[in-house]
Amino acid sequence: MASKKSCGRYAARGVSAGKEEVHAAVDKLDSGIFKGAFCKITEDYLTGSKAKCNVIHSDGSGTKSIIAYLYYKETGDASVFRGISQDSIVMNIDDLLCIGAFERILLSNTVNRNARNFGGKPLAELILGAEEFLAKLRKLGLKIYSGGGETADTGDLTGSVVVDSCAVAVMRRKDVISGTGIKAGLSIVGLSSAGKASYEDEENSGIGSNGLTSARHDMLCPYYRDAYPETYDSNTPKNLVYCGPYKLGDKLEGSTLTIGKALLSPTRTYAPVIMKIAKKYPGLIKGLVHCSGGGQTKCVRFGRGVHFVKDSLMPVPPIFNAIKKASGTSDSEMFEVYNMGHRMEVYCKSSDVDKVVKTANSFGIEAAEIGHTLKSSRADGKNHVTIKYAGKVLEYGPRD
Amino acid sequence: MASKKSCGRYAARGVSAGKEEVHAAVDKLDSGIFKGAFCKITEDYLTGSKAKCNVIHSDGSGTKSIIAYLYYKETGDASVFRGISQDSIVMNIDDLLCIGAFERILLSNTVNRNARNFGGKPLAELILGAEEFLAKLRKLGLKIYSGGGETADTGDLTGSVVVDSCAVAVMRRKDVISGTGIKAGLSIVGLSSAGKASYEDEENSGIGSNGLTSARHDMLCPYYRDAYPETYDSNTPKNLVYCGPYKLGDKLEGSTLTIGKALLSPTRTYAPVIMKIAKKYPGLIKGLVHCSGGGQTKCVRFGRGVHFVKDSLMPVPPIFNAIKKASGTSDSEMFEVYNMGHRMEVYCKSSDVDKVVKTANSFGIEAAEIGHTLKSSRADGKNHVTIKYAGKVLEYGPRD
Repeated sequence: MASKKSCGRYAARGVSAGKEEVHAAVDKLDSGIFKGAFCKITEDYLTGSKAKCNVIHSDGSGTKSIIAYLYYKETGDASVFRGISQDSIVMNIDDLLCIGAFERILLSNTVNRNARNFGGKPLAELILGAEEFLAKLRKLGLKIYSGGGETADTGDLTGSVVVDSCAVAVMRRKDVISGTGIKAGLSIVGLSSAGKASYEDEENSGIGSNGLTSARHDMLCPYYRDAYPETYDSNTPKNLVYCGPYKLGDKLEGSTLTIGKALLSPTRTYAPVIMKIAKKYPGLIKGLVHCSGGGQTKCVRFGRGVHFVKDSLMPVPPIFNAIKKASGTSDSEMFEVYNMGHRMEVYCKSSDVDKVVKTANSFGIEAAEIGHTLKSSRADGKNHVTIKYAGKVLEYGPRD
Repeated sequence: MASKKSCGRYAARGVSAGKEEVHAAVDKLDSGIFKGAFCKITEDYLTGSKAKCNVIHSDGSGTKSIIAYLYYKETGDASVFRGISQDSIVMNIDDLLCIGAFERILLSNTVNRNARNFGGKPLAELILGAEEFLAKLRKLGLKIYSGGGETADTGDLTGSVVVDSCAVAVMRRKDVISGTGIKAGLSIVGLSSAGKASYEDEENSGIGSNGLTSARHDMLCPYYRDAYPETYDSNTPKNLVYCGPYKLGDKLEGSTLTIGKALLSPTRTYAPVIMKIAKKYPGLIKGLVHCSGGGQTKCVRFGRGVHFVKDSLMPVPPIFNAIKKASGTSDSEMFEVYNMGHRMEVYCKSSDVDKVVKTANSFGIEAAEIGHTLKSSRADGKNHVTIKYAGKVLEYGPRD
């Protein structure tokens, strides 16, 4: 759905914006036993129970690791890789939240590194950072455990480091949030991606682990192009490589964070909030959407015959305004790539909005009814999305 | 344990031969509930049963994907990526075999690709190849299922494609092959990595998915250096990049395969053989070692106070002789990096050797008693390995 101009910019950087090719290959595969669910869910292959089901989920920090790499090389501070471990883990568990899998998760991490450029010090931060973050999640009530991991030295495959995770759960089928609950007539409550949650140590810029290839090149200045050729594809036109205005240490306007720290804010997990809502108010949650790849248009893939109206969004955090300004990206596309202020949305009855907001607030997280669902107004009845922002009306969809 | 000369050659190619840094970071972590087992095994986090345990295992095809990439770019034949999917899967499941996990496996695949260089056609081969191979394994009796996967466009992280898998199992604790059975007084039966098993479609060169960075550069000629700069680290000294004698289409001496197809032979799985032995002869298997990273010296990590004597090895397959000749690698190091003829070894009583050999033969796989175990002859009682080959006596260990 990205605009033509931007599609070219993505493709020139070795990224396929629409992932059409991926969908073309994957769409032939079995989509699991809950067709409309946020993650693929299979029968219970692991233990063979008819009452249970399985989910195995893989995702990683993507190119966000490169920003940590630059930061580490410039400052010698390898602790930023702890945040990369968090990014990789949260990209998995916050997807799992959306199907209701927030008990008993087993996790594995995989690191592909260039041993010459990425040595033992940052590697230890990655590995121990993952353990530390899992321990923190356990303190917050999520029964998540590491079952191991793999570090591969693949210097001809990467100039820096690739960080991925895989998370597994065995669930009772009756506990699955299947996605069919997303219908017309619901409120959409957005949980802020920015600020400082009670379980976070620092201000969070609101960035997740999506759109970081663009953000990195469009925000950071040509100094990095010359100093770190191992961090970009040499086939990318030079005018699209680190073509932004900032150095990592520059201040982000409207924030206490530097540009570097803002781009590296570890992806927030919403696990404590969602678990509390689910436990305290059984049946309240009609659906959950993790606004990761696809940003504020991600919801279009869920439910049937739904018009998603987002007309009361929370303020856009400074990092996204800075990216928009530096890259010249349109509002329309910004909402397709970035979360723009909330990375988790709860679908519920309007009478339950207050409960969701107050629960989020109890963790220091802003929340608001950012919109609602209507019946699709398209002739073909397909899902579509309307975002009202800064006096503009942005339309997305339908999903193909 | 690699020689100094070779360590330099590895390091110059961005690979840390000894993985000391990795071990330094990982050794601080919990090693699971069966300390000497081939894989980390945890308590049953997934379902909470005291009688069960979990294993989650991650590994991938490493830099073998680059050889498939070269082959595809040169010939247009993307089907070689089906073999890469097999490599990635077998590197996981054949490790799992060694702990007795050959029932009910759930699997996920992760692809990190440069979308510019690695498009939809080879991606589809990777994804469908994985499905096809899993279907084949199921026909062979292994209950293994795909629970999904992830394709990430990370063109700044890789010039080609990184393929990883994650495999999970829930086991009964009493079924675990814990590694403590590897003691003095046993026979070691090697199962050949080469030839054509009854469940394989083509001759297998015997190569696995280890040592492929060296094999690729030392075997392939400078033509690839000039034509495919995206397939190596630009910081590697040019004289170590594709510095071998061959083109992919050249014939491998002593084989029906070309050099390209021999380097790309999909890693053989021993699952059908091991499952049959375990089922037909309960208690026969005292231990299993998958000779992956570490080659014929991998065994040194298992059991306690053991001297592994390998004095009757099967003939070394042509691919390894060609690698040795092209690279000038010593025999001592060849056995540390490559399987050199058998990638799976079964530890059993001498009276059971015949049963193992005949079972392997029933699948068209050569097998032989390649050695035996004695009590460690070191003063410190640590494990060590002696390999007798071509009139030489090669000594390895102890494990630190």
